[in-house]
Amino acid sequence: MTRRTCGLLLAALLLAPAASFADEGMWLFTNAPKKQLKDKYNVDITDQWLDHVQKSSIRFPHGSGSFVSAGGLVMTNHHVGAEAVQKIGENDGKDYIKDGFHARSQKDEKKVPGMELNVLQSIEDVTKTVNTAVKPEMKPAEAFAARRAAIAKIEKESSDKTKLKSEVVTLYQGAQYHLYRYKKYTDVRLVFAPEKAIAFFGGDPDNFEYPRYDLDITFFRVYENGKPAKVEHHLTWSRDGAREDELVFVAGHPGRTNRLNTVAELRYFRDTGYPFRLQQLYRREVLLGNYRERSSENKRKAEDLFFSVANSRKAFKGMLGGLLDPAIMAKKVAEEKKLKLAADQDEKLKDAKVAWEKVAKIQQLRKKIIRPYTMWEAGAGFNSELFTYARALVRAGDERKKPNSERLREYTESSLPTLEVQLLSDEKIYDDYETLRLADGLTYLCEEIGIKNELVKKILAAKSPQERAYELVKGSKLKDLEVRKKLYEGGKKAVDEADDTMIALAKLVDAEARKWRKQVDTEIEEARRQAYADIAKVKYAVEGDSTYPDATFTLRLAYGPVKGYEENGKQVTPLTTFSGLYERSADHENRDPFELPRRWLAKKDKLDLKTPFNFICTADIIGGNSGSPVVNRKGELVGIIFDGNIQSLVLDFIYTEEQARALAVHSRGILEALSKVYEATELVDEITGKNSASRQE
Amino acid sequence: MTRRTCGLLLAALLLAPAASFADEGMWLFTNAPKKQLKDKYNVDITDQWLDHVQKSSIRFPHGSGSFVSAGGLVMTNHHVGAEAVQKIGENDGKDYIKDGFHARSQKDEKKVPGMELNVLQSIEDVTKTVNTAVKPEMKPAEAFAARRAAIAKIEKESSDKTKLKSEVVTLYQGAQYHLYRYKKYTDVRLVFAPEKAIAFFGGDPDNFEYPRYDLDITFFRVYENGKPAKVEHHLTWSRDGAREDELVFVAGHPGRTNRLNTVAELRYFRDTGYPFRLQQLYRREVLLGNYRERSSENKRKAEDLFFSVANSRKAFKGMLGGLLDPAIMAKKVAEEKKLKLAADQDEKLKDAKVAWEKVAKIQQLRKKIIRPYTMWEAGAGFNSELFTYARALVRAGDERKKPNSERLREYTESSLPTLEVQLLSDEKIYDDYETLRLADGLTYLCEEIGIKNELVKKILAAKSPQERAYELVKGSKLKDLEVRKKLYEGGKKAVDEADDTMIALAKLVDAEARKWRKQVDTEIEEARRQAYADIAKVKYAVEGDSTYPDATFTLRLAYGPVKGYEENGKQVTPLTTFSGLYERSADHENRDPFELPRRWLAKKDKLDLKTPFNFICTADIIGGNSGSPVVNRKGELVGIIFDGNIQSLVLDFIYTEEQARALAVHSRGILEALSKVYEATELVDEITGKNSASRQE
Repeated sequence: MTRRTCGLLLAALLLAPAASFADEGMWLFTNAPKKQLKDKYNVDITDQWLDHVQKSSIRFPHGSGSFVSAGGLVMTNHHVGAEAVQKIGENDGKDYIKDGFHARSQKDEKKVPGMELNVLQSIEDVTKTVNTAVKPEMKPAEAFAARRAAIAKIEKESSDKTKLKSEVVTLYQGAQYHLYRYKKYTDVRLVFAPEKAIAFFGGDPDNFEYPRYDLDITFFRVYENGKPAKVEHHLTWSRDGAREDELVFVAGHPGRTNRLNTVAELRYFRDTGYPFRLQQLYRREVLLGNYRERSSENKRKAEDLFFSVANSRKAFKGMLGGLLDPAIMAKKVAEEKKLKLAADQDEKLKDAKVAWEKVAKIQQLRKKIIRPYTMWEAGAGFNSELFTYARALVRAGDERKKPNSERLREYTESSLPTLEVQLLSDEKIYDDYETLRLADGLTYLCEEIGIKNELVKKILAAKSPQERAYELVKGSKLKDLEVRKKLYEGGKKAVDEADDTMIALAKLVDAEARKWRKQVDTEIEEARRQAYADIAKVKYAVEGDSTYPDATFTLRLAYGPVKGYEENGKQVTPLTTFSGLYERSADHENRDPFELPRRWLAKKDKLDLKTPFNFICTADIIGGNSGSPVVNRKGELVGIIFDGNIQSLVLDFIYTEEQARALAVHSRGILEALSKVYEATELVDEITGKNSASRQE
Repeated sequence: MTRRTCGLLLAALLLAPAASFADEGMWLFTNAPKKQLKDKYNVDITDQWLDHVQKSSIRFPHGSGSFVSAGGLVMTNHHVGAEAVQKIGENDGKDYIKDGFHARSQKDEKKVPGMELNVLQSIEDVTKTVNTAVKPEMKPAEAFAARRAAIAKIEKESSDKTKLKSEVVTLYQGAQYHLYRYKKYTDVRLVFAPEKAIAFFGGDPDNFEYPRYDLDITFFRVYENGKPAKVEHHLTWSRDGAREDELVFVAGHPGRTNRLNTVAELRYFRDTGYPFRLQQLYRREVLLGNYRERSSENKRKAEDLFFSVANSRKAFKGMLGGLLDPAIMAKKVAEEKKLKLAADQDEKLKDAKVAWEKVAKIQQLRKKIIRPYTMWEAGAGFNSELFTYARALVRAGDERKKPNSERLREYTESSLPTLEVQLLSDEKIYDDYETLRLADGLTYLCEEIGIKNELVKKILAAKSPQERAYELVKGSKLKDLEVRKKLYEGGKKAVDEADDTMIALAKLVDAEARKWRKQVDTEIEEARRQAYADIAKVKYAVEGDSTYPDATFTLRLAYGPVKGYEENGKQVTPLTTFSGLYERSADHENRDPFELPRRWLAKKDKLDLKTPFNFICTADIIGGNSGSPVVNRKGELVGIIFDGNIQSLVLDFIYTEEQARALAVHSRGILEALSKVYEATELVDEITGKNSASRQE
């Protein structure tokens, strides 16, 4: 009891000031920051308000969304719904990504193959039940199994009883277990998607940037028994939308945060990990950028990878920029100091204190092996789809002979289906593009490992990286899906007998690659997991549930005002307008990725150009929050989250409201576009409640 | 005599096979490869032929050119003449770079301010005279001074006597001195320049690439006494132009080669120097590329630097690719082995043999200090124009107080005018662009030197690189030319008293930067110079003038057939056509840098699309050869060199004809474009000799 009291006192002492100045937190709906909101904003959020917002919020497979009509109309981001839009287009022989999609009546709404949406109905604390299953005398592996079994039992009983999708969520790194029950919707139909050119206006150059001008929305509708679902809760559309300085709330599903990371680990990222990662990304971005500029065919081949590389580069640059800010680091240092102090003062936590030391040591090792690990195992030296196939085939042959528990994680029985999807995809392989990437990978290998290394010599076989890459690509039959299938099914014997340059290469490097992999798996990843479990214990002992747990892709509530920020001495406006959109497009001579869809050019005169389009707020968000509804204190929808600025990327580790901002599409902007550009009267009527059929009251 | 005989024998032994298989060499016009041409191609080039080609060739300030009519019409590359075209446009308030320029009659030809063209009239071996001035008892510095004095005397006497511009050229690293006498033309007028869009069609993406489609030409005319000069020699235009497999010759001014570089030095470039340089270039290219994509204003600000970075990146990638080719390296190893062997067998050369060892040791040091040197002294950590100004002001203050001989080389009396041009240029400085670059530089400094370094800490002043860069740029007045002028004129005292953030930064880092600079100047550059002087002696002792000397930006003759090559299993065509140009433009939707000028679109139907446009040959060229005439065995002009492919970049160190190619505009393509696209009848008549006024006979 002393421990707990002391901890709580300390927590009150340490956390109160932070909470009253910053709008930090991805709060549990069962543990909402009522006091903070009352103290700072004099706002009372009631349980009824929370229940309504919770049941209006939707979890997508890789993002968030919300109900915006009683008739089951769902809004999410275009980039969250894009895969569905793409698939439906393929089935119809249309390019709905490029041209957009609009079902003007319900009969035209198109079913999305295999999509499931989840709506959280209830939350129950099952910590005791889970913990009771674990006996003190159990060894770690036994404890793990017992815990898994208890969780599975709870989930099964709940789903049998309630018919709701039931998932036990591990919170506070295992200090709490909550049972989340979801209503599932599996008949999801596409209603409306704008053209990608306006949904992702500004493309890669504007990604993670602000000011922005994106109509990043898509509408779906959930059906039950073949009819539009009547949903009990949906968000009322705010015609005014968010205003500057107004307090707003974000209800969504942040995917993962690492706010427990120690200062030593963050320093590793800052000084070694991220600079090295960026070095690779810069290199790849130039390689692919140069290739794609040479012809329209090249552009098509390299476009997706190029965008993903540029996207990662921006993300890492943003995170590095945050970690290089001494103010942010100092905050982390202070937090850690306080936790250590608390551990010092608590006899029961003394053992855990060494965990910080352990994490620091792991970083030393990490620093030493990051380069060879990246080159040999993580694939930087063999930047090629064919090599990826070859390695998967070689390893699948070896690993599937082992007992499940001894396999590399991507070859366990539960992982094989994912592997098979990748290995047996019908993605087209282009020889020139493969050669380009592999030649660069081999060159990188020469640079990082050295041309005198015996294994590098064997790999190059007395050729230049360029020549060798050409030879390796040309000599491989793995671009043929049937060949891969045969080799995969034939197992180790078939792979061993295969006469294939890329298989031979994968075999040649496998021992070396596995050597580094093993060290990372055991001495870094597993050791890290153990150390962080100890640190999490200290944190929970000190803070308990007075704060929010790390993100877990479950429903959370974040909040903060609509607020600009200062950047390079300039005040960045909190809201953008339609006129800004047209100016930006004109500045780029309306060229891709700033090219406006035709109807946007045609309808310009009809629009009120002063209408807000996008806006920013200080709410604490991260990947997974895409598509989250932004609501005001009345619970009305004022916007939809679609991105964070580059300064927000550091939110992975720590909250800061200096410059970090969540980006949202404005509810007024959406209405203006729907009614005037798309003339989607029926949609506008439905979301504004004019359409009596879908009106809630 | 033994030495020499032995050397010559060895040379014959060693070099004959190479010479008979490869079309290597940038030959002196006084020592042309007559035998090689006779043996391999059964071609006799006569002294008359050489004299005609020599006197038809022109040296531009940074490139090459030729006379193409008896009326003094000169052809060079657009990119060689671009600065002149730009200047004339500025004077006229026109954009001739974008729109092109065409004087349809001589009265419209526009004088280029400050341009001088040189035509080589005679070559005289003055080695003995120069060497006689140097006495064996002289110390190196005395010997250097005596040699300089002897050279100056020869030059002065010659120019007094002949009224020709007279320059003594140091060949074979000082084994020979030749007196070159040039006829000077200082009244140079612009006649014709195409639009940059066609001159540099494909822009950065196609730079150093092949196939190409560039009309990279510009015509000038030299005047004497206010009238078009009557020139004795000019090249007759070949209406057929170059054909596949035809032997062609290139007469031009290769700027600099490093073919003496030892294997140890090349390995340093391959394993350390170039990868590190590329790492910086990748980083900058992404930084600038991202910035310039964000707005048209950004694009304007960053365009030149972005192109120059991308250009360097390609060049280094090309050189690295060559050095990573074991076949190329093996050739270098064999060459070196033979030279060492020769040195071994010659008592007088034994001392020189240690030079290879010395060069290898220098590379070890270089490897150790390249990173800190690059960050602190070479400016990678302070990527900013304002910092460059600040450092120049701080150092100019310090250095000008020292005796001339003790100064850093860029502050000696003879260098100050160049410094002043840079320091006092009226180039506009943009705060946001400066901040972007400096923030990246400071981040790079953190990554390479480490955030814990005391000096780095002082530089950052407890701010993030981004914040600090903003503060430094904002707090500097050096963007104001008048401020810089005052500080420069005020000398050390004024600089010391200046209250300027950037001056303070330059002062703060100067001791550290100078420390690395000093080590590079003495232990690397000077030590290297001495070692290479010894190696050059061995080479000359062995080979004498049986081969060509390293390039010296003086007239040389190269040769080789018009020939495709194999790349990634595909045969690359030796000639491109006009139809290829239109296809490539269409493939890029006629968008910049593949956008064709309007008249090219309008006149497409008039053109014979099968006409050859660009072509390649195996001639041994390097930077400085831009604008060189390509002639056939009859001495007729069949094309004009404008680039090398990426595989040719290794020619800096070694000749290879596997894939390395010189790129040229085809003489028929030029005629087709001039007559049909530009309707430049008078120009076509003049160069084809129809215009009797300028006809030679």
